[in-house]
Amino acid sequence: MSEASLIAHIAAIAAVRPGVSVGIGDDAAVLTGDPAVVLAHDMVVQDVHFRLATAGPRDIGHKALAVNLSDVAAMGASPVAALVGIGVPRGVTPRFVEEVYEGMEELAGAWGCTIAGGDTISASELVLGVTAVGRMAPGIAPVLRSGARPGDVLWVNGALGASAAGLCLLEDRSLRVPAGVRDALVAAHLRPVPRVREGIALAAAGTRAMLDCSDGLAIDASRLAAASRVRVVLELDRVPVAPGVAAVAAALGVPADVFAATGGEDYALVVAAPPGFAPGCALVPVGRVEAGDGLVVTRGGVPVVLERLGWDHDVG
Amino acid sequence: MSEASLIAHIAAIAAVRPGVSVGIGDDAAVLTGDPAVVLAHDMVVQDVHFRLATAGPRDIGHKALAVNLSDVAAMGASPVAALVGIGVPRGVTPRFVEEVYEGMEELAGAWGCTIAGGDTISASELVLGVTAVGRMAPGIAPVLRSGARPGDVLWVNGALGASAAGLCLLEDRSLRVPAGVRDALVAAHLRPVPRVREGIALAAAGTRAMLDCSDGLAIDASRLAAASRVRVVLELDRVPVAPGVAAVAAALGVPADVFAATGGEDYALVVAAPPGFAPGCALVPVGRVEAGDGLVVTRGGVPVVLERLGWDHDVG
Repeated sequence: MSEASLIAHIAAIAAVRPGVSVGIGDDAAVLTGDPAVVLAHDMVVQDVHFRLATAGPRDIGHKALAVNLSDVAAMGASPVAALVGIGVPRGVTPRFVEEVYEGMEELAGAWGCTIAGGDTISASELVLGVTAVGRMAPGIAPVLRSGARPGDVLWVNGALGASAAGLCLLEDRSLRVPAGVRDALVAAHLRPVPRVREGIALAAAGTRAMLDCSDGLAIDASRLAAASRVRVVLELDRVPVAPGVAAVAAALGVPADVFAATGGEDYALVVAAPPGFAPGCALVPVGRVEAGDGLVVTRGGVPVVLERLGWDHDVG
Repeated sequence: MSEASLIAHIAAIAAVRPGVSVGIGDDAAVLTGDPAVVLAHDMVVQDVHFRLATAGPRDIGHKALAVNLSDVAAMGASPVAALVGIGVPRGVTPRFVEEVYEGMEELAGAWGCTIAGGDTISASELVLGVTAVGRMAPGIAPVLRSGARPGDVLWVNGALGASAAGLCLLEDRSLRVPAGVRDALVAAHLRPVPRVREGIALAAAGTRAMLDCSDGLAIDASRLAAASRVRVVLELDRVPVAPGVAAVAAALGVPADVFAATGGEDYALVVAAPPGFAPGCALVPVGRVEAGDGLVVTRGGVPVVLERLGWDHDVG
């Protein structure tokens, strides 16, 4: 079963009760109240989300927290606290675990976030679950996936494809790119940057819908379309491709725009807002919102069918 | 390395920043504000915290949430929301995962709690991490482990040993107890009851220090002593032993009071408060708080040395 359909089954089981205004299905849950509290929980596990051969302990800690801070940012909230569960296999030393926390602490400190609790258990593989807690500014509502309207422009707040290219470089040592570009691509994969400041600015400026680009722009845009009950047209020609990505895509025989739009793990913010929207942070228009449903991908105005839209992991 | 010493190392890495008033080290973290928000995160993993041979999916879901609601209760808060991360191994069906959530949802609904989000990933073993979020009543401060003072009485709010006895019965089918008692003991192990109502009443009544009895009364009392910088005297003669526990302890050749005081996973609340404390829920006095440090265990007024105080898992 795909992760998406399992989550749909789980959401049908879990009733939303007083005290919670947004439950399963958005980037983060929202507690009722002003300022609203938002809560995100993502897990990472070895050999699925990272490899011990290519990621150091600080990288692993950084990424486990970063993906959750990105979810908090995608609501427009400021990070406050994180709780960390870690399953530690035999052979992983206490020092290694401490370095995982040092990687998290460095990122947490940059955003005024406190690693406030958690749990440490023995497990058969290294697994981390992080809950990130954020607070909205007073009077500002969390930005959901469901607010896009026909006539809106689809925007993204940064170039895409770097993380996927970095992963390809780590997995296939025979791929060749210039050294300076290589380091930046690998860093984009191992140490993704949550767009916290931009998320806060976008929420304050009245963005209608927002999510973070975690599994690939195309699949994330299709999620925004489904949540908002609109059609999203994604124009491949306008997708900003990060430096060095074209070389990796070419080596793999994939068009650079498709690679960038489906690679995933960029953690840029994907936004729907009216034309002329000027939130005070850089945004690149990559498509439009129409009446209808589903995702339409185009190049030169002509529909293109993508083999895959991004990552929807199988579970079980 | 023991879990306790690893947590001490981690706590030294994690700075507490504005917005958080209690970080690593208590039953739950506390966000600054009134009403205060508390956050607990505990993980359970197969073959450490449960066995697929003896626990059904609803049991597993119930227990994973219950241990976290117990931490929220031990602060005196009402549960509001839970976020659930689940790692699913090959061979575990989507229906099994749904039943895990059904077990959680049944318990969540009983306490007005919403399963509000989380993550589902592939893993090599079944692992759950649950974050429980609670809110204090307005004007009521969370009850920490650190508030006990010399002269206080140590109390516990229920009989102990049932969960450990239930585990013994599940692990060793040759142990014999009367059938009615057996079911209650096994249920105490598989479906622990978080003492939510009692925790709220105890906080409102001005309990000085509180924690939940998760790893064994003796080790938990020693944690209260350390956090409060006091000595705790635990009187084995006064420890309430749950029905049926004596038979299991006798079969194992362990005194029933020692078995009850070190078995763990009872999730009763352990409380320090002045003599005559009357919070409106049943409490049994089991010891006293003195100036000094550490835990002293006595029987008939004479110090007793226990081989072990409870569970402090090794990690890595």
